[in-house]
Amino acid sequence: MGISLGDNQYGKAEVRMVHVDRSGPRHRITDVTVTSLLRGEFAATHETGDNSAVIATDTQKNTVYALARLGGVGAVEDFALRMARHFVDGFEQVTGARQEVEQHGWERIVTSGGEHDHAFTRGSGETRTAVVTKTGDEEIVVSGISGLVVLKSTGSEFHGFPDVPYTSLVETDDRILATEVTARWRHLGTDVDWDAVHADVRRVLLDRFALTHSLSLQQTLYAMGRGVLEAHPGIAEIRFSMPNRHHFLVDLEKWGLDNPHEVWFAADRPYGLIEAAVVRDDVPPADHAWAGIAGFV
Amino acid sequence: MGISLGDNQYGKAEVRMVHVDRSGPRHRITDVTVTSLLRGEFAATHETGDNSAVIATDTQKNTVYALARLGGVGAVEDFALRMARHFVDGFEQVTGARQEVEQHGWERIVTSGGEHDHAFTRGSGETRTAVVTKTGDEEIVVSGISGLVVLKSTGSEFHGFPDVPYTSLVETDDRILATEVTARWRHLGTDVDWDAVHADVRRVLLDRFALTHSLSLQQTLYAMGRGVLEAHPGIAEIRFSMPNRHHFLVDLEKWGLDNPHEVWFAADRPYGLIEAAVVRDDVPPADHAWAGIAGFV
Amino acid sequence: MGISLGDNQYGKAEVRMVHVDRSGPRHRITDVTVTSLLRGEFAATHETGDNSAVIATDTQKNTVYALARLGGVGAVEDFALRMARHFVDGFEQVTGARQEVEQHGWERIVTSGGEHDHAFTRGSGETRTAVVTKTGDEEIVVSGISGLVVLKSTGSEFHGFPDVPYTSLVETDDRILATEVTARWRHLGTDVDWDAVHADVRRVLLDRFALTHSLSLQQTLYAMGRGVLEAHPGIAEIRFSMPNRHHFLVDLEKWGLDNPHEVWFAADRPYGLIEAAVVRDDVPPADHAWAGIAGFV
Amino acid sequence: MGISLGDNQYGKAEVRMVHVDRSGPRHRITDVTVTSLLRGEFAATHETGDNSAVIATDTQKNTVYALARLGGVGAVEDFALRMARHFVDGFEQVTGARQEVEQHGWERIVTSGGEHDHAFTRGSGETRTAVVTKTGDEEIVVSGISGLVVLKSTGSEFHGFPDVPYTSLVETDDRILATEVTARWRHLGTDVDWDAVHADVRRVLLDRFALTHSLSLQQTLYAMGRGVLEAHPGIAEIRFSMPNRHHFLVDLEKWGLDNPHEVWFAADRPYGLIEAAVVRDDVPPADHAWAGIAGFV
Repeated sequence: MGISLGDNQYGKAEVRMVHVDRSGPRHRITDVTVTSLLRGEFAATHETGDNSAVIATDTQKNTVYALARLGGVGAVEDFALRMARHFVDGFEQVTGARQEVEQHGWERIVTSGGEHDHAFTRGSGETRTAVVTKTGDEEIVVSGISGLVVLKSTGSEFHGFPDVPYTSLVETDDRILATEVTARWRHLGTDVDWDAVHADVRRVLLDRFALTHSLSLQQTLYAMGRGVLEAHPGIAEIRFSMPNRHHFLVDLEKWGLDNPHEVWFAADRPYGLIEAAVVRDDVPPADHAWAGIAGFV
Repeated sequence: MGISLGDNQYGKAEVRMVHVDRSGPRHRITDVTVTSLLRGEFAATHETGDNSAVIATDTQKNTVYALARLGGVGAVEDFALRMARHFVDGFEQVTGARQEVEQHGWERIVTSGGEHDHAFTRGSGETRTAVVTKTGDEEIVVSGISGLVVLKSTGSEFHGFPDVPYTSLVETDDRILATEVTARWRHLGTDVDWDAVHADVRRVLLDRFALTHSLSLQQTLYAMGRGVLEAHPGIAEIRFSMPNRHHFLVDLEKWGLDNPHEVWFAADRPYGLIEAAVVRDDVPPADHAWAGIAGFV
Repeated sequence: MGISLGDNQYGKAEVRMVHVDRSGPRHRITDVTVTSLLRGEFAATHETGDNSAVIATDTQKNTVYALARLGGVGAVEDFALRMARHFVDGFEQVTGARQEVEQHGWERIVTSGGEHDHAFTRGSGETRTAVVTKTGDEEIVVSGISGLVVLKSTGSEFHGFPDVPYTSLVETDDRILATEVTARWRHLGTDVDWDAVHADVRRVLLDRFALTHSLSLQQTLYAMGRGVLEAHPGIAEIRFSMPNRHHFLVDLEKWGLDNPHEVWFAADRPYGLIEAAVVRDDVPPADHAWAGIAGFV
Repeated sequence: MGISLGDNQYGKAEVRMVHVDRSGPRHRITDVTVTSLLRGEFAATHETGDNSAVIATDTQKNTVYALARLGGVGAVEDFALRMARHFVDGFEQVTGARQEVEQHGWERIVTSGGEHDHAFTRGSGETRTAVVTKTGDEEIVVSGISGLVVLKSTGSEFHGFPDVPYTSLVETDDRILATEVTARWRHLGTDVDWDAVHADVRRVLLDRFALTHSLSLQQTLYAMGRGVLEAHPGIAEIRFSMPNRHHFLVDLEKWGLDNPHEVWFAADRPYGLIEAAVVRDDVPPADHAWAGIAGFV
């Protein structure tokens, strides 16, 4: 027939795990959502329903919990690497793995008695992410942030665009700039102080967002990405997907009221969408490490 | 026919507004979602489509923006009161109003140059709420918090429940206790320092959650409510809706691994649900102020 | 202190169950989400953590499954009644129960071989609901529909509203009328052919929505409710919560294009919100049966 | 520095439009969500904030509405092609476009007077999708379905998987198989009867899902894809992302009850995830047409 199975992967998605480090009275908690996907010699189950090579998705879920018990969770990048190596190095039929870990933040409650040992509040919607793509011996780590919502109440302009057909937008030299940052950066290696790099990338992103006087969201995005690559030679590239969450100045003139950039309507949809990569020129691409990652590919 | 119109209200829901206080270089932003509902002599539009008494919902939306321009937003309780008075005191056919305001938190970005004047990150999913019910001259203010997610990694037990039919739960003296607090408290008056009371109620709730050694989520809830009423004589009652977000200890025994309360599965559904009021005995009830508020009534 | 426990209830929320009737080769599936809440003598667990009266929420979940095994699910109203009677009639400390069941629709797949015996597709987002409130021997059943999204592309006007301050809405004699119907109706008894009444109420609601030439969404709502009470003497009252999902005619004039009610922008937020009850005059109210039901109370 | 701008695109996302065909008394409505993204010579806005080449995202939104006024919407594939050609063929700086259209279904209300001319109910969550990627003169159309939830109450087995470490899953020869189908198929050309092909692909997918006795979800997926390629020589490949929505048989033995595959718990998370392509062997790949499409790439 000339029809055959193409690329394929399978596994268990969104395994919810909370790990409690109880090595002392001051507990530390790590709250993650793990998705484990395997690639390899799995044509038989597709073609005939022969499952003799299929490591059950339930087993992949159990492995998340077992590895957490054996070595804790640690940095999400390290955990994803351990998962990938367990499967790719341990099973002949598994030639590749894609392991994704999302970490949800918690903050310690401060009571009248000071910082509490084992009581926490959930942090913002910001998530720390790691995607490890392992193909045989090749291991690529893409770290990231999602759900980081930022806003500037001034310091943003937008003008100079061409008046092509169906243009009605009015130029402005003072608007609200708001976006929800999804950023993913690819590391050149795997011998990295993941926590330190994550914290510093986040610092650079916020710094550049706040300090760049913006003539377009594209300009802000590029400044953020450039800042990260300048500060971190171990990062090969960084990609962004940033919605432009529009805030419209409310027109109150018909009731004799001015509105000096004070009262805004925050719109849901539609929204602008800016997606771009900032890349280090002398580094070969690795597009397969980005397949299936939400946002711009 | 013996059929007629019963209770009714109408208005505009989820008006999204960001107000920027630009009175100095250090901007302050207030991000709210407002729902305005009016009650009164509106039988005609229901029965015949005669809209001569109907203040358009679009007008209610515009009023949100206009009042924000005229007096800023301030405390959400105050803004809801101003909205309610505008309509009930200003229009004969409006005999009552229900005004709800939700406030979404933002935090100032700290850059290499210190706290930024006009750049912010969105805070957690926690929301500050106010519902004002005005019926003629009577004004009742219900303040609240929603989306406050908290977790204790120990200090929580659950046992002693009866072994009735269909019981299979195992008793425990050490579990994770996690919940998303929705709390609403009714004030005795309207001459209140809303911001100060809100901050202190929040402090008490977190303090009691963290410091109560829990034998049931009900016990924790009651301790939280009692603490609020003890500290704030101006609060008549407080009501809670608290899901018990179950965390199940993962059984690793079949692979020769113990699990000393370290590795947990965080479940989505079903969840426990605990709802209760804590009330001041000598205060008359005001159930109409609670109608339509999500959670236990 | 003069502080005490007020109204309270507890239980298990959102128990997801699919029941398969395999009594013949042509399977029938019933897909429900059940929330079981109990009321009664539960002060001890709140005040001291004494759980000796507490029927565990896990037990309530197990009871959902056991009762489904023992007697099937049947009409959601009947299942909620069976749950309520099991707890209120069976346990001294349980003086009341609130049982809520939501049913999600599935349709049989039609293959090349005709209607399939055991393969189904999920239906629309419309949900059939039942809430049973049992207090001692008193049993009140509130049936309902939620998620029923309807739209008329003409046959809807809105004008004649007063030009009060902050009004800018333009009158129209031809607009899109769209809403998501949530309707709940209270029965006078419990000896009812639940499936037949549900089907006929749904028929009346759609008929009146479609056939009423609308001068306001209020008028449409009232016609729908009146139609239901006229057709069903066993229904005491019906309550609605209906958002007005605005569709705005897009202005294309600036590019020389007319727009004869053809191209519309469908807005998310804000939306109008119309809530009202239609009641039978000679029936006593039963407000406690409506507590905690979303929408207008 | 050796740092530069990589791949990038920008536009307006989730433009909500309802088009009403009023050419006769029997209205037809087309409800779509459109995302327009442009690629080309846009380095300047990133690097310096020079927007002289930037067709504003607001203009892209207006173009959606204008093109709908000028030629209606028609098949979503055609509308996406018209959008792409408008921008790529009309503007020198635009070298490529990615236009995505999602269509939401509505069904005519049947009243006591028969099928209504202009009253509709919203259909299921199933969405018809089209993604057009135009790069210069090359145009690739990927059609699709998402949100198609299907379930078989028997006719599904899963066994024969290896007992590797951390395996605890029990083999079964009778389970519920449920999934939410996301399928996307790439056409070889653009001269296609889009509506007819869409309807027939949908028919084949449901037919194969229902009629395949399943030994694994992979086997079902492959049968579905193979069926589509066999029936449609104009389709080059089809890709699937199918969660395995687990239903667990409830164990009632401890209370003396059997459970002959009747009472099931429907779990939310984690879920299995099966992703695969079925491809025609003699057709060159076109991976760039799949970039940014959710699901397996």
